[in-house]
Formats: sequence, C-alpha cells, structure tokens
Amino acid sequence: MKKEISAGKLRGLARLADADGKFRMMAIDQRGSLRRMLGRTLDREVTPKDLAGLKKLIIKELSPYSSATLTDPVYGYPAAIKDFPPEVGLLLAVEETGYELAGPKALERKSHLIEGWGVGKVKRAGADAVKLLLYYRGDASPEVVEHQQGIARRVGEECVDYDIPYVLELVSYPLGEDERAFAEIKPKLVTNYVQEFQKEEYHVDILKVEFPASLRFTEGYEGAFGPVGEPLWDLSQVEGFCREVAEVARVPWVILSAGVGIEEFLEEVRIASENGASGFLCGRALWKYCVDYWPDRDAVEQWLRTSGAVNFQRLYQASSAARPYFETKAFGSYAEVRLLDFGEDWYRVYKAVNREP
Amino acid sequence: MKKEISAGKLRGLARLADADGKFRMMAIDQRGSLRRMLGRTLDREVTPKDLAGLKKLIIKELSPYSSATLTDPVYGYPAAIKDFPPEVGLLLAVEETGYELAGPKALERKSHLIEGWGVGKVKRAGADAVKLLLYYRGDASPEVVEHQQGIARRVGEECVDYDIPYVLELVSYPLGEDERAFAEIKPKLVTNYVQEFQKEEYHVDILKVEFPASLRFTEGYEGAFGPVGEPLWDLSQVEGFCREVAEVARVPWVILSAGVGIEEFLEEVRIASENGASGFLCGRALWKYCVDYWPDRDAVEQWLRTSGAVNFQRLYQASSAARPYFETKAFGSYAEVRLLDFGEDWYRVYKAVNREP
Repeated sequence: MKKEISAGKLRGLARLADADGKFRMMAIDQRGSLRRMLGRTLDREVTPKDLAGLKKLIIKELSPYSSATLTDPVYGYPAAIKDFPPEVGLLLAVEETGYELAGPKALERKSHLIEGWGVGKVKRAGADAVKLLLYYRGDASPEVVEHQQGIARRVGEECVDYDIPYVLELVSYPLGEDERAFAEIKPKLVTNYVQEFQKEEYHVDILKVEFPASLRFTEGYEGAFGPVGEPLWDLSQVEGFCREVAEVARVPWVILSAGVGIEEFLEEVRIASENGASGFLCGRALWKYCVDYWPDRDAVEQWLRTSGAVNFQRLYQASSAARPYFETKAFGSYAEVRLLDFGEDWYRVYKAVNREP
Repeated sequence: MKKEISAGKLRGLARLADADGKFRMMAIDQRGSLRRMLGRTLDREVTPKDLAGLKKLIIKELSPYSSATLTDPVYGYPAAIKDFPPEVGLLLAVEETGYELAGPKALERKSHLIEGWGVGKVKRAGADAVKLLLYYRGDASPEVVEHQQGIARRVGEECVDYDIPYVLELVSYPLGEDERAFAEIKPKLVTNYVQEFQKEEYHVDILKVEFPASLRFTEGYEGAFGPVGEPLWDLSQVEGFCREVAEVARVPWVILSAGVGIEEFLEEVRIASENGASGFLCGRALWKYCVDYWPDRDAVEQWLRTSGAVNFQRLYQASSAARPYFETKAFGSYAEVRLLDFGEDWYRVYKAVNREP
C-alpha cells in the first residue's frame, strides 16, 4: 500500500530531512527538564530569561549542523527566531511541559496541549512540522489511554487540516516497576506504541520513539554507561527489537535521546540506524554539558563550538546507515512518492484550510 | 520608523534570501507567455503536458542555484514538487495569467486571481511567499486603478492573515504610446507605482519591479540589445532613476527580466544592485533559449546545465552589490529587526489564522 502525500506534508518532510532523506534533527524544546538542570547549577531562581538566553545560544551554535531543529514556542522560538538558519527545517512543539498524574494509583500520565497555542499557529509562524510529546503506556487505565489517544488523534487531524507534517514523540514510563523490571518490558512497550500510533487514523508522519532496549542491560556494555546491571539481552536481541519496530512502523521513525549521555546515544543511533530507523531527534545528549557553564555565555559558546559540534559530527557518522524517509513502507522509494490529487486540476482540488471553527 | 515583523513573514523572508540577505530568485511561473513561446517552435498544439514537463526540467536544473524559485500552481508546482531542493525558498503565484482589457479605449489592463486558488492554499501547500502580478498604470481610468489597488490590498490582507511574505510584481504597459514615448515615461511610471504600493496599507514585503529605464535608449548601449534608438538618457541618469526607486521604497525591491536577453538583464541587475535594489527575480532571461529544444529533453537539459547554469553564476556576480533586505528602510539592519509581539506571552498573543470566512 503506497501512500499519496499532500503538498504541504511532502514539502515539510523534505525540509526536515537531509538531502539523502535521513533525519539529523536537534531538540531544544525542553522546558521543565531544562529548568531543573539550570536549578541544579545556578544558586538563584531560574528565570524565563535564563531559559530563552541559553536556548538562543544552543540554537545559534548547533542548529546549523542539523537537518531540522525542534524548539518550543514559549522560550525558544521567539528568542531565537533570527538565529535559525533558513535552510534548516523547523519544528515547533504543541504540548504543555510535564504531565498530569492520573489513574487509580496516580502513577499514570496525562498530557495537555499548551493553552493559547496550537497547530494553526505552528503553521502560521513559519514552521515545517508540528511535534507532540505523549507519555504513553498502552496498559494504563482505559480513561488515560483514551485521553492520550484522543490528543494524538486531534493533533493529527489538525495537521491534516493545515497540511503540515506531524511528528509524534512517545515516551513510556514505569507504573511501579523498578529499573530492571521496566527495562525488561521496554521493548514490548515501544513496539506496542509504535503499532498503535502508526495507524492511519492518527495521521502521523514521523514517530519519535525511545531506543527500545537499554544498553545498560545489554551484554558487552555492562557498566559502560552507568551502574552494572546483570544483562537482560545480547546485542543481536537488541538489534531484533529495532527491527521489530521497523517491521510494525508504516511511517519513518527516529530515536530520541531521553537524557542519556552522548556515548550511549551514539551507540543507540548506530544500532537503530542499522536496523530500520530514519535517523535521530537528539536533545540533551547533544548539548547538556554546556548547561553547567550558564550564565557565562562565552564558556557556553566555547563548549558548543567544540564539544557540541563534535557531538553532531559523530551523530552524522553514527546515523549513516539510516533509512531515508521515502524508503519506508509509507512510500517505498522516492520514485514512488506521489502527490495527492495530482492532475490538471490540482490547484482547484487542493483543499483550503478548513475555516469552520 | 523601524518595522516589527511577524514570525511567519520574518522566517519567510529569510527563506527567500541568500545567507547574505540578497535575493537571487528565479521565476518559472509563466503560463500564457510560455505557451506562446512553445507555440512558435512546436508544429503542433501546445498541451498542458508540454508546459508541465518543460517547467519540471527547468526547476530541476536551475532551481538549486536560486535563493528561491517562483512557480505557478497550475503546471509548475504539482509537476515539479519533488524536484524543488528543500533548502531553496518557494514562491507561488496567485494571479490568473494575462489580463482583461478595460477602460474607455480597451487599452487598460485588469488583473484577476486564479479561481479556486488563493493565499490560504499557497501557505497550506508549503510555500514561503505569495506572488501577485499586477499590470499597472497609475494614470489609467479610476475604475481600473481602483480595481488593481483593490486586488493588491486584498491579497496583502490575506498574507497578513496567513502570516506569509507578499511579493507584489508590477508591470506597466503603453496606453497608446509608441516604444520611444513609452520608454520616456517609464522611469516616472515605475517610481509612481513603487511609491503607491510600498504604503503600509498593502502589506507588501518585496516589490518586484521593472528596470526603470530602457538601456536601449541609454548612451553607450546604442544597438547593444536591439535596434538603435536615439538615446534618451545617459548612464548617470539611469542610475539616478534606480536611486529614486530606492528612495521612495520603504521595502526591499528586486528587478524582473520582462523577457529581455541575458546580456541586457545582467547590465540591469548590476546597475540596479549598485543603486539600491535587493537582487532579482529573473524569469525568461535565465532560461528562454532552452524552450527552442523542447520536446527534446536531453537537449533542454544540456542547455540548462551549461548555458543556464552560467547565466545564473553571472547573475550572482552582477548582483554582488545588492542591498540585503534587512538593510532597507523597513528594517535598518539585521540587529534592528524585531519580532512583532515579542515577549514572554508571544505564543499566546501571536494570532491564529482568522477563521471567520
């Protein structure tokens, strides 16, 4: 089943990828987590100016290396709009930072959209894609599962309305499991949410997902990235988990860095890229050590221009085997990519934004 | 008076320009004129497939050299959407090809918009700017003048609504004057329309205008680009006409090629760029000789890859003195460019597309 794609989505996807169709994207849309990181190093209250100022520096120095950069509309975009290279793709987030605790034991997570913002504003403001982060456990209580699926579906429908690519980020979380027990079920959690959200009804164009199995519990990596854990898998099993994701995902998928260090993420990117991923959307792993230098702008810049730039170069190498987005099941090959409603009347048949409120 | 600029317009302008803020744009949105050119070389009826096929080749081969490419939504965009380099800006036209004859002597020209298409679709389809071509004589009959100004204003308001840059192209035409008499009044016609349409009420972001004085009637160029004409001006006067345009234009302006040959256009670009223009949006001068080879695709490609590419390189050199868009009166300097509604509440204050029909 080959997919026909609308003009805005096709142009947007191309804007997010490198010339070779691989995604080498940077995320600097953190709000709560960046505030907490700054709170640990500053001996005063963290202000919006700290967040905006640091984001502006990171965007200015690292965004030029990315095929596209994701930021938030609260601190990042307004502060750094003049620092984005115009040739680099732009993604803007629509979810409120953090989550609401929910479910019978208040361990489950409900996401919310940023009030007063939304898909229409993302498109209007000149971005190439919408990004929604959802915390997700398919085995959470039905009310929470429905709530999360409902948001995903609603944003998807709005992305169709505004004809803009939809990047859905999924993050699982423990429901009482300890670290090891959670690591053990992670591959299943990831495969399951990919299976769910690649369905046509969500209109997702790129899935941003977790690396499906922690390398901390993988033979050969014991102790490399943190405390030694008795291995749960060997490398070929981990590769198998990635191939399973690639098998169930109709659309391209990229991996997120979830706060791990750069060495661990490089391994994850390499393994995922060699087993069906279309690249990465990397946040903290790329730039987190520069946070310690804030508010010394020169020191932050110096770190970004040296270590930050090197991190990015290494990520390019690690993702060299990534699958071009147009070679995923959704398309097959670039030659097979077909414009929706192509024909002599395209300009007339092509939909306007649905103006019914 | 420095202008604050909205996010979509700012990002769009940056997408149209080179990294240095200069516009090196290509136009391949011709419909009627391209059909006529093909009609002269083909010994059969010109079909939509001819137009789409030729446009696709030109876009594929030359668009990568441009800072942005303008095409039409009828033949060009749907046929060539996969051939546009994602890093190159994209402009789409909204006017119907040609014009309606009007006025007391049926010598005046009324423009119309493409039915079933419009600013909202341009934005939705992933373009970075809207382009409207208006035939214009400020001294036409009031009804025609009002009609043309009305279209310009309406498209301007819609570009504000969708937050997308607005490129207004103005072309004067003779009202009974012979070639020489028309050449004599051209500088005044151009200055006058620039004066009119740079007004805030039209919300124009870039004016695409004619070179204000024909070099065929300029001392030192006699016979160089066509039949000898007794000179009307010397070069310093022609430079003065360009400086007058730069003086009255609040916004950046670029020059159009209006079917002249590449040698003549190179001189025009050089003179305009040295006297206040921000670059060019060049159509037929760049590629017109390849039309003769159609439908021999290999020959067309061969011409574009050699002569076409050389034309573009020479245009870059000729426009080296062009004024960056952010150094026009609308902005002053890049440091002075300010985001509209900048502040902690930007994402909330930033308008959504007006959904009232």
